[in-house]
Amino acid sequence: MTMDIHIENLPRTIELVADEGGPVLRYVDQRLLPGELRMEQTRDWRTVVDAIKVLAVRGAPAIGLAGAAAMALWAAYDGKGLEAASEEIATARPTAVNLDWAVRRTLDEISSSEGRDVSERLFSLVKLMEAEDEAANRAIGENGAALLGAESRILTHCNAGSLAVVFYGTALGIVYAAAAQGKIERVYADETRPVGQGARLTVWELSRVGIPTTLICDNMAASLMAKGCVDAVVVGADRIARNGDTANKIGTYGLSVLAKEHGIPFYVAAPMSTVDNSLPDGSGIVIEQRAAAEVLPRAIEGVDVWNPAFDVTPARLISKIVTEKGAFSPEELAAQL
Amino acid sequence: MTMDIHIENLPRTIELVADEGGPVLRYVDQRLLPGELRMEQTRDWRTVVDAIKVLAVRGAPAIGLAGAAAMALWAAYDGKGLEAASEEIATARPTAVNLDWAVRRTLDEISSSEGRDVSERLFSLVKLMEAEDEAANRAIGENGAALLGAESRILTHCNAGSLAVVFYGTALGIVYAAAAQGKIERVYADETRPVGQGARLTVWELSRVGIPTTLICDNMAASLMAKGCVDAVVVGADRIARNGDTANKIGTYGLSVLAKEHGIPFYVAAPMSTVDNSLPDGSGIVIEQRAAAEVLPRAIEGVDVWNPAFDVTPARLISKIVTEKGAFSPEELAAQL
Repeated sequence: MTMDIHIENLPRTIELVADEGGPVLRYVDQRLLPGELRMEQTRDWRTVVDAIKVLAVRGAPAIGLAGAAAMALWAAYDGKGLEAASEEIATARPTAVNLDWAVRRTLDEISSSEGRDVSERLFSLVKLMEAEDEAANRAIGENGAALLGAESRILTHCNAGSLAVVFYGTALGIVYAAAAQGKIERVYADETRPVGQGARLTVWELSRVGIPTTLICDNMAASLMAKGCVDAVVVGADRIARNGDTANKIGTYGLSVLAKEHGIPFYVAAPMSTVDNSLPDGSGIVIEQRAAAEVLPRAIEGVDVWNPAFDVTPARLISKIVTEKGAFSPEELAAQL
Repeated sequence: MTMDIHIENLPRTIELVADEGGPVLRYVDQRLLPGELRMEQTRDWRTVVDAIKVLAVRGAPAIGLAGAAAMALWAAYDGKGLEAASEEIATARPTAVNLDWAVRRTLDEISSSEGRDVSERLFSLVKLMEAEDEAANRAIGENGAALLGAESRILTHCNAGSLAVVFYGTALGIVYAAAAQGKIERVYADETRPVGQGARLTVWELSRVGIPTTLICDNMAASLMAKGCVDAVVVGADRIARNGDTANKIGTYGLSVLAKEHGIPFYVAAPMSTVDNSLPDGSGIVIEQRAAAEVLPRAIEGVDVWNPAFDVTPARLISKIVTEKGAFSPEELAAQL
């Protein structure tokens, strides 16, 4: 049974547009979802850096694109202090490799331009990266859908959907492609404390597209698996080491252990740009620590908070890493690099 | 190094007191913590049933005591419709066996009284049960503390502390007894979505006693274990089958799988009254499903919520069940019944 899905109901999450007087970056302020879908726009690269830091723009591919767009805005309206600006943009958040990768692409473009038409060239590069993002996601979707059987019930964590990229999604891209083939029965979304990307973003996105969705608390995943309600776990990635060790939203590692215990395949969906060639394994991945107030709004004397934003899932617990080039075991991935 | 702990800073969670004109039940309204410590009091048994249902009184031993106290209030101020009243009290929540067990004790007392001094006899029974509760908890504490090494770092889930019992606690009873022996370095508390018993109750209780405490989100436990920061997991129980299968707060089962993966001992702390002799294994335990709004306050069209309040941890994942009679493997427990 094919499902009537409406991917067109989703906004483009982030987009650089040509306006009178120069480029403007438009983006969804994801902090306001699911209550309000508001498109912000800015010509100020420092505003983009802030948007990344406060999670108005989040999701590894989306913050990569935001970083490249910030460089394009820098070139169009500022143009001074290239090294400091690019460093500030590339380090707005530490864990996702996409941000550093995207800024390096703009720096390469600036180098090869030899000072001519820098602003126009960066605008064109960002538009190319937007198109590449959507094309990669649609390919990831097809490659991942091929792994799923009929009536699949998918568990996902955080938001690796259209809101995490320019358009379409990585983990949820697989859901969308599989749903179009009639293979999706239901998606279970972890709420994903403390920021609630599952509860606020994933369920909003899935309901807009028309995918049957059930929200659970993070601590319910094990019970759901034990009841036999999960056919596959599909998540995104913020940085993948050469051996396949994968950094993703905090809680992903625990899900991978639970999936193994219950004999459930565990799929990581990400574009090849998420692979960090400089890292032999996950031990070198910097994990961002965020503020205590995200977990405990009112401090209690004598009570600390530990709030890492990511964890590292070892390659041995990953069934397939699904990229735009194909679905690979962690061992096979290395041959693609 | 012994630790300066202040168990006397904790209130008695629930207590039946003799007042002019008859018994009054005093209890902490736990919905207001950690912001406010408010003692409620009532003479109305139906108010006690409501307090159990809305989680103003929660924790298996505490709701057991509340159930017995409700019967004492019934006897003192109502006295009509014994069967309906006792049924309504015993089924206020379905999963914890303690409620049913406590109400049955009052019914046995009523039977043996042959209609004489029923109100006084139930008052005395409740006071005996309060004393038994604290004595059992202190024995559980000693029996559990003996299992822990020096500088133990404990991970706990939900609140199996003094707030879950009349006084002292089961899982946290072990922490308090071990801390008095200088064995506790730190307690990590899962926030325990969706109701937040860890974030609201456990950290409040531990900070009042003076135990170094770190709050984490439920999905961070796996990472914490992988970092080598957890020496033992200690949790409470709502119902234990004869084979040792244990129902406890949702998320407990997942922790038991993670503890096994990381080679960390997994201890369940509960009085013997938590063992349900009528159940050969955990498959017969009724799991309470709670309202969607606990997880998703504002409904989203097309999005369901799955919100079980408990899960069942199989006996094979439990290292010891710590009771007032001793610390037993699940196999050894059966011999105590």
